[in-house]
Formats: sequence, structure tokens, C-alpha cells
Amino acid sequence: MITGTSGSRVKKIVQLQQKSRARNEEKVFVAEGIKMFEEAPPELIQELYIEEGLYDSERLGPLRDKVERCRQQGCFVETVTGEVFLKLSDTKTPQGILCVMGQQSYSKEQMLSQAREKRKRGGIPLFLLLEDIQDPGNLGTMIRTAEGAGADGIIMTRGCVDIYHPKTIRSTMGSLYRMPFLYVADLKEIIARLKENRIKVYAAHLKGERLYHEIDYSEGCAFLIGNEGNGLRQETADLADCYLKIPMQGKLESLNAAVAAAILMYQAGVKR
Amino acid sequence: MITGTSGSRVKKIVQLQQKSRARNEEKVFVAEGIKMFEEAPPELIQELYIEEGLYDSERLGPLRDKVERCRQQGCFVETVTGEVFLKLSDTKTPQGILCVMGQQSYSKEQMLSQAREKRKRGGIPLFLLLEDIQDPGNLGTMIRTAEGAGADGIIMTRGCVDIYHPKTIRSTMGSLYRMPFLYVADLKEIIARLKENRIKVYAAHLKGERLYHEIDYSEGCAFLIGNEGNGLRQETADLADCYLKIPMQGKLESLNAAVAAAILMYQAGVKR
Repeated sequence: MITGTSGSRVKKIVQLQQKSRARNEEKVFVAEGIKMFEEAPPELIQELYIEEGLYDSERLGPLRDKVERCRQQGCFVETVTGEVFLKLSDTKTPQGILCVMGQQSYSKEQMLSQAREKRKRGGIPLFLLLEDIQDPGNLGTMIRTAEGAGADGIIMTRGCVDIYHPKTIRSTMGSLYRMPFLYVADLKEIIARLKENRIKVYAAHLKGERLYHEIDYSEGCAFLIGNEGNGLRQETADLADCYLKIPMQGKLESLNAAVAAAILMYQAGVKR
Repeated sequence: MITGTSGSRVKKIVQLQQKSRARNEEKVFVAEGIKMFEEAPPELIQELYIEEGLYDSERLGPLRDKVERCRQQGCFVETVTGEVFLKLSDTKTPQGILCVMGQQSYSKEQMLSQAREKRKRGGIPLFLLLEDIQDPGNLGTMIRTAEGAGADGIIMTRGCVDIYHPKTIRSTMGSLYRMPFLYVADLKEIIARLKENRIKVYAAHLKGERLYHEIDYSEGCAFLIGNEGNGLRQETADLADCYLKIPMQGKLESLNAAVAAAILMYQAGVKR
């Protein structure tokens, strides 16, 4: 049992929680809470920290078997005191379980080939292209909604917040493990590849000339969503096949980025 | 100029930022930032605090006239040091302007009569009914989206987070000033009044039997959205005319509450 907060393992996890550089150097991230542990692919779990008392409590319940399977496959499993867990945790009211996991990685070609397969089966290829999204909660919510709408992948500029930010992970509610994603230097190349695959690229834009609900998305689509404060860069918006407009009443200037993404993905992804 | 952080005005504002009880006792709230000041109805502004240097800076720009109008109408206007402003502010990187404003209040009858007028003009009455929403950002995002979708009002149970929570205010991006809202002990009475007015009440529910996009909302509608963790209470869901289903792919169990509200309000509010 770890009882002190100054040991090297504790320090390492605090670093992994706080710094994307620390995460990327080790190619790991920290997933916290019962739901994130429950949905975690076992083969990705490297270390598991459980607060004293949780293992035998009802809250862990049937997940005890998963803890044992982790242990058997050679994963480092350790109990820590309440004080230590609070130090490890990114939240003020931690749930008492936390794992260090290997980062997943996806390739562009994999995503595109899956989208083509989906089209053959009668589905609609659907992508989200994010430019410089700053709010970790917004990013997590977009990943969660993307899974619900049946998206095939999320492509982000490196100016976006880290997908392994603790708040992003929490907001995905487990979708993080299942939604393919990719960081790119800029969106130019992926947009070209999408177009080659007959996937239309739409920019959500205040100057949008076409209403989002009057478009036929059935060939496949990718939605460009820009930074929360500044929207899309002009040179990125220029790459779109079409500017879309989400109508707004009242005096509103814009919708929240995750809300705009949700409205578009659900319009396109749900068969009407 | 206020230069110390221990005076009674400073203490009062810190209380107003942190405690809904303090806000409700004085029937005021604190709105921060340039956008919230820009959009604030002048007659509601009671006190205005400006960080040293901002008044003469470009960032305030044409809003200087609004500051002067506030002063002329008898509003208390005061400059404070950077240190004091940081103490007053709810954010880590404050924008240097903050106002204490009177709370707005709306009545049920007012909202219903406006919805009836809207129907006469060919519009679709649209309401959001929120039960025990806990996340202040979610609530603010719902208010913002409601304005965009053309909603006529938001009715919340008292178990919802305070609409004047600093994070809620920020997330509304100014919609707070324009979207009629009401807190109620429970939703029973308002649901009865909505039904009397031929406004159908739909519960977003995992057991939903009808797909949200296959319904004709043109007579008017109200959407029931439940608590983020637990969904709607059974006795509340029972009051709905119909359970709605928002289809989800993948292994997702639910959508974020603000996302679900957005998808429904935009489906109903936008003429198709």
C-alpha cells in the first residue's frame, strides 16, 4: 500500500494528470473513475490504483473480477490511502479508482477504409474536423456525441487541447476508448483525402449560405468546427465544399462549438 | 479607487459570486467580462467595477459611453486595482469589468401568453423543462442554445443549479438577459398549464418509444430533460405526453444533457 504522497510513483501520476508533454513522452494517460475503468480495454491498462476500502465495497461490485484479470495479465495493481488518492486524482471528490493506460493510435488510412466499408453497407461516412478547440469539456462532449451519431473519426489540429486532458476524458464517458482520432499539423491533407473519397466537407460558418437541414448528406460528410472564440481560420474555411448555416434566433452570435457539432452530426448521421 | 481586498464592498461581491443564498437575499447577481457588460440591460446595472487601466484601453473602446450612461443614471461606478479585481473575479484571467445587477423575473402566464401570440403568428411554441440539472456549464449552454432555437422559456426545478452561478452566466454568452426563465418546486403544475395550451410535453428518455425526428412538433412542444447522472424521475417522466428516443450508435449509454436539449430544440424549432 502507498501511504505517502512524496514517492516517485505518486509524483509521476500527478505529472501525467497535469502535463500533456509528460503523457506524450510516455505514450500513456490517466483514466479515473468507475465508469472509465469499467469500459477500459484491459490490454491497455498498465497500472491500477485503488483507494483503501474500495476493493471490498459494493461500489466496485462485479468490477473486482476485472481488477483480478488486470493483476493476472501482469498489470501493476496497488492500494493507496485516501490522502494519497486525493493527491493522485484530478477531481475534488474522487471515485477511488484510477488507471495508467497506453495511448491508442489510429491511422488516416484505417479511418478512410472503414468509412468506405460503411458506405458499401449503406451507411453514411461521417467525420468531425476540429480546428484549435480549446475547452477540454467541449472536446470530450464532441467525442461522446460523435459516437452516438455514428461518426467514423475525429481529426484535430495540434492546436486543439490534448484529448487526454483529464476533463476531456471525463466528458467522453468512455467514448474516448472507441472513437478513432488523429492529430494533424493542419487539415489540408486530410480534407483532400476526404474529397478523393467522395466525402463532402462542410464548414459551420456564420457566413454560411446553405441551411444545414436542407442538405443531402447521404454520400458522406465531414464537418469543420473552429475555435470557440474565433471560429475557423479563413484558409481552413476556404477548403470546404460548402459553408453551412445553423439558423439562430434572438440576438445570439454563435452556438457553443460542441452544440453546433452535435446538431450537424445528428442531422447527417440519423437516417431521415 | 478601491485598493484593498478587505473592505466590505469587496467582501460582499465575493459572497455574491460564491453563494446563491447571498444573491437571492439581495435579488442581485454578478455579471463579468466585456461581453456580459456590453449586452447588459442598462436599467439592471446597480454597481460597476472596472480594473485600473481598462477604462482608457482599447479593449473597452465604444463601451466607455455605456459606462458613462451608467454613471449618469446613478449607478455606483468604481475603479479597482488589479489585485482587487482578481479577488472580485470568479476567473483566473479576468477581463477587468464586472457589474452587480438586479435579477430579472418572469411569470408563467407571461411566458404562456407570449407562446400563444407566437403560435398566432405561425410560430412554434417551444419550452425547455429542466429537472435537477447540476452542471452550471450545461445549464448556461442550454440557455444559449434555447435562444438560438427560438425557445419561449426555460422552466427549472429548484433542484437545478442556480442560473446566476458565475459559470452558468459565462456559458450563456448573454442569452441569460433575454431568455425568460422560472424556478418551480416541481414541474407538475406547469406541465398541466402547457397541456391546456395544446403544447405537447416530450420526455427525452432512454426508454423512448418514438424517434425524435419523426414527430410533428408544429403545434408546440416542451422538452423534459433530467439530471445528468440519473435522468428524469419516474413521476416526472410519467407526466409527459410521449417518451422520445434520440438514437445512439456505438456503446454510448446517454448523451450530454445540453447536447440532448440542443438536438431536440433544433429539430422542433427549425422549420423543415
